[in-house]
Amino acid sequence: MSVVVRNTPRTDSGIVEGFATLGVATVHEAQGRTGLLAPRLRPIYRPIRIAGTALTCELAPGDNWMLHVAAEQARPGDILVAVPTSQCGDAYFGELLATSLRARGVRGLVIDAGVRDIADLTVMQFPVWSAAISAQGTVKETVGNVQTPVICAGVRISPGDVIVADDDGVVVVRREQAENVLRNARSRAAGEATKRERLAKGELGLDIYGMREKLAQRGLRYLDAGDD
Amino acid sequence: MSVVVRNTPRTDSGIVEGFATLGVATVHEAQGRTGLLAPRLRPIYRPIRIAGTALTCELAPGDNWMLHVAAEQARPGDILVAVPTSQCGDAYFGELLATSLRARGVRGLVIDAGVRDIADLTVMQFPVWSAAISAQGTVKETVGNVQTPVICAGVRISPGDVIVADDDGVVVVRREQAENVLRNARSRAAGEATKRERLAKGELGLDIYGMREKLAQRGLRYLDAGDD
Amino acid sequence: MSVVVRNTPRTDSGIVEGFATLGVATVHEAQGRTGLLAPRLRPIYRPIRIAGTALTCELAPGDNWMLHVAAEQARPGDILVAVPTSQCGDAYFGELLATSLRARGVRGLVIDAGVRDIADLTVMQFPVWSAAISAQGTVKETVGNVQTPVICAGVRISPGDVIVADDDGVVVVRREQAENVLRNARSRAAGEATKRERLAKGELGLDIYGMREKLAQRGLRYLDAGDD
Amino acid sequence: MSVVVRNTPRTDSGIVEGFATLGVATVHEAQGRTGLLAPRLRPIYRPIRIAGTALTCELAPGDNWMLHVAAEQARPGDILVAVPTSQCGDAYFGELLATSLRARGVRGLVIDAGVRDIADLTVMQFPVWSAAISAQGTVKETVGNVQTPVICAGVRISPGDVIVADDDGVVVVRREQAENVLRNARSRAAGEATKRERLAKGELGLDIYGMREKLAQRGLRYLDAGDD
Amino acid sequence: MSVVVRNTPRTDSGIVEGFATLGVATVHEAQGRTGLLAPRLRPIYRPIRIAGTALTCELAPGDNWMLHVAAEQARPGDILVAVPTSQCGDAYFGELLATSLRARGVRGLVIDAGVRDIADLTVMQFPVWSAAISAQGTVKETVGNVQTPVICAGVRISPGDVIVADDDGVVVVRREQAENVLRNARSRAAGEATKRERLAKGELGLDIYGMREKLAQRGLRYLDAGDD
Amino acid sequence: MSVVVRNTPRTDSGIVEGFATLGVATVHEAQGRTGLLAPRLRPIYRPIRIAGTALTCELAPGDNWMLHVAAEQARPGDILVAVPTSQCGDAYFGELLATSLRARGVRGLVIDAGVRDIADLTVMQFPVWSAAISAQGTVKETVGNVQTPVICAGVRISPGDVIVADDDGVVVVRREQAENVLRNARSRAAGEATKRERLAKGELGLDIYGMREKLAQRGLRYLDAGDD
Repeated sequence: MSVVVRNTPRTDSGIVEGFATLGVATVHEAQGRTGLLAPRLRPIYRPIRIAGTALTCELAPGDNWMLHVAAEQARPGDILVAVPTSQCGDAYFGELLATSLRARGVRGLVIDAGVRDIADLTVMQFPVWSAAISAQGTVKETVGNVQTPVICAGVRISPGDVIVADDDGVVVVRREQAENVLRNARSRAAGEATKRERLAKGELGLDIYGMREKLAQRGLRYLDAGDD
Repeated sequence: MSVVVRNTPRTDSGIVEGFATLGVATVHEAQGRTGLLAPRLRPIYRPIRIAGTALTCELAPGDNWMLHVAAEQARPGDILVAVPTSQCGDAYFGELLATSLRARGVRGLVIDAGVRDIADLTVMQFPVWSAAISAQGTVKETVGNVQTPVICAGVRISPGDVIVADDDGVVVVRREQAENVLRNARSRAAGEATKRERLAKGELGLDIYGMREKLAQRGLRYLDAGDD
Repeated sequence: MSVVVRNTPRTDSGIVEGFATLGVATVHEAQGRTGLLAPRLRPIYRPIRIAGTALTCELAPGDNWMLHVAAEQARPGDILVAVPTSQCGDAYFGELLATSLRARGVRGLVIDAGVRDIADLTVMQFPVWSAAISAQGTVKETVGNVQTPVICAGVRISPGDVIVADDDGVVVVRREQAENVLRNARSRAAGEATKRERLAKGELGLDIYGMREKLAQRGLRYLDAGDD
Repeated sequence: MSVVVRNTPRTDSGIVEGFATLGVATVHEAQGRTGLLAPRLRPIYRPIRIAGTALTCELAPGDNWMLHVAAEQARPGDILVAVPTSQCGDAYFGELLATSLRARGVRGLVIDAGVRDIADLTVMQFPVWSAAISAQGTVKETVGNVQTPVICAGVRISPGDVIVADDDGVVVVRREQAENVLRNARSRAAGEATKRERLAKGELGLDIYGMREKLAQRGLRYLDAGDD
Repeated sequence: MSVVVRNTPRTDSGIVEGFATLGVATVHEAQGRTGLLAPRLRPIYRPIRIAGTALTCELAPGDNWMLHVAAEQARPGDILVAVPTSQCGDAYFGELLATSLRARGVRGLVIDAGVRDIADLTVMQFPVWSAAISAQGTVKETVGNVQTPVICAGVRISPGDVIVADDDGVVVVRREQAENVLRNARSRAAGEATKRERLAKGELGLDIYGMREKLAQRGLRYLDAGDD
Repeated sequence: MSVVVRNTPRTDSGIVEGFATLGVATVHEAQGRTGLLAPRLRPIYRPIRIAGTALTCELAPGDNWMLHVAAEQARPGDILVAVPTSQCGDAYFGELLATSLRARGVRGLVIDAGVRDIADLTVMQFPVWSAAISAQGTVKETVGNVQTPVICAGVRISPGDVIVADDDGVVVVRREQAENVLRNARSRAAGEATKRERLAKGELGLDIYGMREKLAQRGLRYLDAGDD
């Protein structure tokens, strides 16, 4: 059975906006190194950075019909997350669909498949993370699901979860945990500022992080060149 | 037997120039989704777009000798299409050959193998689509063919066929069909302009393309979140 | 046993600076087509070009502890060469470590693994060649080696060897051979200038390199289109 | 936080045994083409076929410590499902661990990573589906999770779900749906027997499935060779 | 437009049978190293060897409908050659279709995509060369072509061409050239027998093929260990 | 300059034979997890196991000329280790060369490239580990090196080093370290026998290796299903 679930809850927009200035790596660390999508998803241009709420869509391989169905469910602030049920790198998405999504308030696309019209998408500055680039189009014959939980690039994403994406990749934060993760991520970012300053002055991580003793315990030895 | 075929016919230049402003995706659609080269061929810089006539060259793996032979057969408006007889990602091509080809009027290179000097090629704005980037050079020991039909990245290309290439990839249009395909592509591009305008206003593809009934017939159902 | 070798010799800086304006392809040719790292190592931004001396570091997979150890051994002019003992594309390196390395005079990173914070690294213009991009962090549990010979992307690199890297890839020149290779590379670059000029005027490689006779001997035949 | 969840419920063994004679493809079809693990997981020998209940284990990359923790939670009829938190193809598993698991009643291993000692595992006929084969060992430094839900090769697996695996790959059936899916799968297998018999006699699928009219509607035309 | 071309000519069966005992490598050499399909096509079991005439079929990605259409056009001695118009590794083929094809006299399948039921196909000894193994099924929604020329794994194949396939891969011989290639291949196989006998006695290829002088001319030098 | 180094020393045959019954994984562990070739090298049949001394050969890509030169340098007990200077998966080796090498006492082939005639090689039981299987032949135009140190699949191998290879892969032991490594490997194999016996009785690795305390220290917690 194929379904479209309407009116699914989104993460509070105040929280979502908080993620907009944080990097994917920071968010990933802040939630215990979970939620990172596989690195085969790459941005089509750089630099690039967005945060928004997941609008999920499950497709048949080589069939982009459900993207049109998803467009109707979009709300401002959403990021479309599209996953075919098996791998096929054809182009499910191009600038016409981007035009439509932008008109509905969608901030970008994360797709474990291919896209086309990337020159136009770059000019439009419509952010896309995809597994492939191809000009090969798709058909509109088989229905799928919209706004149901999906597995995208190895990670489970539910409608309304927070998506954060930048040059490094894409991470998802579950809706229920978003507030906590945001707090951790901000605190982590603040902590890094201090370390950055010390490192920039030439202090060593060995000293800042107090690593020397543990390294010795694990068996690290220092020699001088020419020693035997 | 290795041969160079001289004076092969080219697609009429008036037709070729018509393709220069059309995207690869549009041309691919306009000829019934045929002629697209495999997406492993990627441009070395972006944005990028050319159209021209195929100057074909078949090489031994790890051997770029025939590119020099091909250079002599070039005519202004050609695009060199080079294919080794088996996969080897070494660099068959660099800025010296690009300098030579440009002097002979060649507009770019499509090669199912590797290239080097990509910083120089980018500065020269010499367009290249390749399967690999490597600094590893090749030898000049084994002869091949110039201006015979080749299979490049999964597609048959004959001398004089139209090559259109952009950020999305590379498509070939057979010489005999070029005029018809150009007409279809232009008409398709015109039709898209209208759709783009409607989508940009927020109209849905579901309505513009009249998809709702067929979706229901294929079994798509709408639920509300919280329903069971 | 895990070791850090201190005070290893570096190639003379006068020689190293000589490589700074030469391309990787030229250097590779100048030493008999040896020393080129596998093309899976790609720069994180372009254009990019550096030369420096190898500061080597061998890591456990998914563990970046030894990069901090390596930072202490760095000298101005070094390029960090990092290799996990088995393939794992996680991010061993980001902008904090780059800040530290830059403060110690390190010119860039060559790593047969993944990196993150690539937007920041690009803004900093800290040059990195890596096999992957990922936001997935690593642990600090297992010791390795610093300033011992390593195999990186298929090539043996000893501490103090010259590393030259640009848009095309990365090449290593052994310390003992650096002076000779520099001389050959400069002579090769000079020779190419003349050829470039002749090719730019439309002369053919067939004539400049005197290839016609050898091609005929190897069996190349010329036909005219329509001949049979 | 790393946890081991004890005493998680398993699918009823009567149901599990029912899957033992059904193929992965049949089970996959019987649950609406869901639950199939990515085809990068391949059996280490053939022919091979098992069904059992999932004993899940999440590992650090290059670290197999938690497999020993999982062994203690095993119950007869389990299949160990092991997933590193990021890709690393080292060997997390060999014949010593297989000996241990077999002694605890475990029927096989599904791992999205590498294994070794495959000659011994083949002689033991201990079934393994893995993403890689390598002799490279792992460390025991970082804790993970046992018997929590995991994403393995793109599919969510909960402790106690049914795993069915054969030469074609691996499929998971959720515990709550196992009884229904078993019924569907048996009915499907029965239906195929009749079709097989008719096809074996030379009847065409075109007629058995009544496809001719729909093919004509979709535009299929028949020509004779030599027609134009 | 989608077409089925009926009554296409086949290579004479006397010639086809002549290829049945010759290896793919021998046939490939005997026609000037042309016609070899890309090595991503691998047999599902070994040892394996067949020769037959090509029954070609072009499919939509993730759609196996046309295989049923192709079955009707089969004649005894055919080998089905199936190609999706873009890459998708799902299973287009399993034991039911194999049962049908065998009943119609088809000798095997060459497919640039995936198959399933490989345990059954192995027991049936139905030969298959495929690019992937997966249990993921396909739909029946989009029409394609039967018995038109196709590009399969990088090589053009016309209906009725000879297909020879074994453990090493798959090669096609064009119908018009089949008689000549058979003659060359037999002569080549005979010549190898003599060489095999001499090599088995310990004679060196260096002497049998008279390579020593050419090696010296190309600059090969002999040293003794310890020389400098 | 291309050289053949004659009369290079081999590891003592008494030591080499000692490795013949030890697995690759055991040897790899016994020398501190070094010397393992990248897992892209796979055996062409299974089960398979050999030990011998390295006869090294460096080739041009797509050119197998030097294998004939290497054959002359072979001594009984050698294993040929062949490496092209850049990646090309064509078939450098088939049953004629295997016949020649066997006649000269060579025990097998390790090649970071392709081979053909694998059905014949399997019948001959001539052991081969390769990176690819293809029927595509190579040329004989460019000279290389025999019996010089090479980097094969990421590992440095010198003439006369010990090669051990089995179903899991290939490992090299340096000649100078062979006696020590053999002693360690035997001791390791003996220690495993005891552990195997205890594990087979159902004892847990957790207890045998005393892991429980360290796991608790690193933060592992036990819950019961249904707890919160």
